[in-house]
Amino acid sequence: MAKDLFHQVVKDALVKDGWNITHDQFPVDYGDVQMQIDLGAERLLAATKDKTIIAVEIKSFVRPSAISEFHTAVGQYLNYRRALRTQEPNRILYLAVPKQTYDEFFRLRFIEEGIEEYQIYLLVYDVEERSIVKWKK
Amino acid sequence: MAKDLFHQVVKDALVKDGWNITHDQFPVDYGDVQMQIDLGAERLLAATKDKTIIAVEIKSFVRPSAISEFHTAVGQYLNYRRALRTQEPNRILYLAVPKQTYDEFFRLRFIEEGIEEYQIYLLVYDVEERSIVKWKK
Repeated sequence: MAKDLFHQVVKDALVKDGWNITHDQFPVDYGDVQMQIDLGAERLLAATKDKTIIAVEIKSFVRPSAISEFHTAVGQYLNYRRALRTQEPNRILYLAVPKQTYDEFFRLRFIEEGIEEYQIYLLVYDVEERSIVKWKK
Repeated sequence: MAKDLFHQVVKDALVKDGWNITHDQFPVDYGDVQMQIDLGAERLLAATKDKTIIAVEIKSFVRPSAISEFHTAVGQYLNYRRALRTQEPNRILYLAVPKQTYDEFFRLRFIEEGIEEYQIYLLVYDVEERSIVKWKK
């Protein structure tokens, strides 16, 4: 339930930001392993006519233990990115996190340093406004 | 339930292998973040009188989705290792996996390459025999 809600929030936020949702589940295949990233989207850059393509792993951080959700998010992100590197290296992977989580939990030194060390790209979204607050590479 | 069972199996296997279990939950503190690694253990090397100290993250891979458990295992391992680097750099972190999982799932190219890329050290245990089958760095 909660998962579907946040999934829809991030979709709405991306659409509002000019993105076209291309995959409601973005499939990643790597030999014998099949995975699904939460969203695939694209946006046309008017100036160059180039397309930017992204995949988005959506986290709500509503679980009682934020650190447990962070462990899982890190593992998924690194594994997805590694698979995308082979399958579609131009597709940029983002981890979507709610603004409140970003403003509080992601300010902890251990989390900040992890995001830096693992080079995780963040997409920060506002749940109420259904909008994107920040892209952070 | 299952978690406790595998925890006990790995403890028994380590004791059989000459290890002294020092922590049933090994606490890791990193600023504002507190975590618990499943086990802490030590073994005296008779020749040098040096102690080897380890922390062990125990996975059973009994969950329906092995790949989901793998994502979580990777995130935990990298975060724990990063915290240990500061707190106790001599303590070597191992991911404990059952022999059957190691022989099957961990043979998949995506998994093998992940273990290699993330430099995850493995401790392979036999659930029936309650023994350690392999240490793999």
